[in-house]
Amino acid sequence: MSAKPTEYTFGMIGLGTMGRNLLLNMADHDFAVAGYDKDASKIQLLADEGQGKRVQGFTALPEFIQRLHVPRAIMMLVPAGVIVDSVINELLPLLTPGDILIDGGNSHFTDTNRRAADLESKGFHFFGMGISGGEEGARRGPSMMPGGDKEAYQIMKPTLEAIAARVDGVPCVTYIGPGAAGHFVKMVHNGIEYGLMQLIAETYEILKKGLGIDNEAIGKVFSSWNEGRLQSFLLDITKDIFAFVAPNTDHLLLDDIKDEARAKGTGKWTSQVAMDLELPIPTIDSAVEMRDLSKYKALREKLAALYSPEEPHLEVDKDAFLTSLEQAFYFNMIISYAQGMHLLLKASKDYEYGLQLGEIAKIWRGGCIIRSSFLNDIFNAYQQTPDLDHLLLDERVKALVTEAVPGARAVVSQAIAVGLAVPAYAASLGYFDAFRSARMPSNLIQAQRDYFGAHTYELVGHEGVFHTQWTPEHEDAAHKMDTHETSSTGNEKKVIPNK
Amino acid sequence: MSAKPTEYTFGMIGLGTMGRNLLLNMADHDFAVAGYDKDASKIQLLADEGQGKRVQGFTALPEFIQRLHVPRAIMMLVPAGVIVDSVINELLPLLTPGDILIDGGNSHFTDTNRRAADLESKGFHFFGMGISGGEEGARRGPSMMPGGDKEAYQIMKPTLEAIAARVDGVPCVTYIGPGAAGHFVKMVHNGIEYGLMQLIAETYEILKKGLGIDNEAIGKVFSSWNEGRLQSFLLDITKDIFAFVAPNTDHLLLDDIKDEARAKGTGKWTSQVAMDLELPIPTIDSAVEMRDLSKYKALREKLAALYSPEEPHLEVDKDAFLTSLEQAFYFNMIISYAQGMHLLLKASKDYEYGLQLGEIAKIWRGGCIIRSSFLNDIFNAYQQTPDLDHLLLDERVKALVTEAVPGARAVVSQAIAVGLAVPAYAASLGYFDAFRSARMPSNLIQAQRDYFGAHTYELVGHEGVFHTQWTPEHEDAAHKMDTHETSSTGNEKKVIPNK
Repeated sequence: MSAKPTEYTFGMIGLGTMGRNLLLNMADHDFAVAGYDKDASKIQLLADEGQGKRVQGFTALPEFIQRLHVPRAIMMLVPAGVIVDSVINELLPLLTPGDILIDGGNSHFTDTNRRAADLESKGFHFFGMGISGGEEGARRGPSMMPGGDKEAYQIMKPTLEAIAARVDGVPCVTYIGPGAAGHFVKMVHNGIEYGLMQLIAETYEILKKGLGIDNEAIGKVFSSWNEGRLQSFLLDITKDIFAFVAPNTDHLLLDDIKDEARAKGTGKWTSQVAMDLELPIPTIDSAVEMRDLSKYKALREKLAALYSPEEPHLEVDKDAFLTSLEQAFYFNMIISYAQGMHLLLKASKDYEYGLQLGEIAKIWRGGCIIRSSFLNDIFNAYQQTPDLDHLLLDERVKALVTEAVPGARAVVSQAIAVGLAVPAYAASLGYFDAFRSARMPSNLIQAQRDYFGAHTYELVGHEGVFHTQWTPEHEDAAHKMDTHETSSTGNEKKVIPNK
Repeated sequence: MSAKPTEYTFGMIGLGTMGRNLLLNMADHDFAVAGYDKDASKIQLLADEGQGKRVQGFTALPEFIQRLHVPRAIMMLVPAGVIVDSVINELLPLLTPGDILIDGGNSHFTDTNRRAADLESKGFHFFGMGISGGEEGARRGPSMMPGGDKEAYQIMKPTLEAIAARVDGVPCVTYIGPGAAGHFVKMVHNGIEYGLMQLIAETYEILKKGLGIDNEAIGKVFSSWNEGRLQSFLLDITKDIFAFVAPNTDHLLLDDIKDEARAKGTGKWTSQVAMDLELPIPTIDSAVEMRDLSKYKALREKLAALYSPEEPHLEVDKDAFLTSLEQAFYFNMIISYAQGMHLLLKASKDYEYGLQLGEIAKIWRGGCIIRSSFLNDIFNAYQQTPDLDHLLLDERVKALVTEAVPGARAVVSQAIAVGLAVPAYAASLGYFDAFRSARMPSNLIQAQRDYFGAHTYELVGHEGVFHTQWTPEHEDAAHKMDTHETSSTGNEKKVIPNK
């Protein structure tokens, strides 16, 4: 790598906290880096924070571009959506074919597909890269999910591996796959994150309203969990939140925060795409639904006045219940990850991403928001069986789930009996119980669809699709069938094979 | 209306069962009508079925068009998607400005918006009309949801009112609203339908696996429910399905049908759009998820082998449980409709549809798949309070829900305890319990988001948004905040108002 003082090996467009922190992280690892932002105050912040490091900020785009090594490596960290397109349009006339352009934001994967096709046709290397870890991760070591042009990845690999989080010496970055694979995987990462956050929130609800214990005791539960098999970044910060007293008061800042959850959309995208892929992720869907529901504060207050004469309260042995609750949370956590991994597998097939689920689990073990002790189990499961159809098929996961599920049943059934809202907890069990049903009641849905809409059904042990006129009074309508009608033999005339 | 033998007042494009049946329905009401289909066998079917009626089929589009009154009224009943566009393209050169074109299929409402804008700019009247009732409804009287050009609706009104289903003499058709309002409302109708069908399927699961009763006894439960307050089209056909013996056997055809549910997409659209509108409809989402899950038959069999050593069984007093189950189903049914109506209200505001929810309930009382005795209660609720914020706020609905919810809690908690999959049942309760929470645990989600992503939060009783550096070790990072940083007073320096 060249070290000329006026030349930079990497450029960042967008010097918000994430962009600046990533640049400083690179500078820490001895890369000479440049940043661009129209906002001069950001350039000043970068200069302050980067004192003594080989990092420089620019407010003029052409100068910034000229000072970068060719082939250039440039990352955009700007808000997802139209801004990404306008930055690309501004940038293109200044670039040289062969340059590498990285979208490090949370772009929708379909936008990334479109941009990749466009930029590749113009001779540029484009890749969409998911980055997780928040501002702290960006500064100290994030988990990165780059997808797209593999050749470009090889060029960027040393830089990315240097700045990534590390677990057991292994950097939390790997080439994810072609096209928008990186952004897709990051989106699903965020979907899992939504699920886990909703599960923690429902646990808080159970502890606070159901058991009636105070914040200090709740904090101790999360804190102790975080020292066991439930260890995770999200429980770690939750424990901190339960220790943070509002300035100049004697109560937690948490108590003053409005109970209306916001969202930036990646969870919603995950749920919507899963529905397009016809792959069920009910725990994640439930998290999206509950963020939405929380925003109807005024309506909730009206409904509470009508339907909540008293707070729900669990009449249970607290210690025994807390043991069950730990199992329930563990079970739910496993199910959240399992749904996310299943969605990745389906997308990998349908979109031909060629995802290595073990590698993805590997790079999620550090730096990112959903890192947890359990990700080692996921990693091991896919190490052992790279083409595992579902996480719940893994032998060790099976043992963990089998041990934890009685606690989950006890908690959910008791919570629902007294009126506690535990929709994501319940969705996880519903998913599990449906998936372990060799025979579901969906045959009835098929019969109904055929009854009212002639949508046909399939028969166990027979090829083809069939239609029936289900009621005697409809019998005269049999001749109205479309030309798919091919056979009508004896009493079976109402059952007809299709096309 | 002219009655010249060679002139027709209405034309239908697409002579599948639905198209033919609607034409025959019109002919029954003394309209002279024409149909077009490329498939000569359909023309023959129409001729057979329409003997003695003023109905004629054509296989040549120009001739068909020439034989229609001007301004023409033409309905397309063809599969949703690109086929609609190609039919329109074929049709346009043959039409006269002022002609009315109706899309009677299940088009996505965004497609209808696009087509309406395009056709109106060319001087045509376009409207998207949802039609529910299946083939039988089309023949004897469907429920119809026309939206778009109101002037065109006035012209079509006598025809549509003549062929619609009637309840207490009132036709089940009304002008829904501008743009794609008709297709939107039909989509939500189908979403509710998905919810109700899944609830019936889960009830079947509880009865069959949980109580271990046979098909005859299950059929009796549905049959008796259908004679009480649960009376509905879907229970009515379910009762028939439980009486339908497979030809030449001694068991129900239902038992031979594969338990993999198919879908045409309107339920999925409802869930996806609700997420875009940030409006929670968990019961409907659950129905979509379970149709998807059911298709993983091979995986379900593998998971059953690992996790289902025995079938779940309820140890309960059957009669008492059946009383609770009726309450549970009633509660779930109310919640399904309530979610759908809430979604309509939100869409009406966001898309400026100006929907009259009472009118919609009115036209759903007859002809359509979700017609039920309870729709009278919904109709009455909106008659009394046209701008009702949520169905659960209605006094009579409140009384019904309050009476039914203990049964729902008993059933769901017991089903979950023994491992029965009742995800939509549980989702309905989760929705209800969350919505009757004046205070949700979502403040914790906001604290977490601010902790790891600096996404800010809001405070009870304070304007503005705030950000905190949550941990002591991050305190040195406080100066890294963006220019939104404006105040830092005393101990409160970590809490900063944004922009």
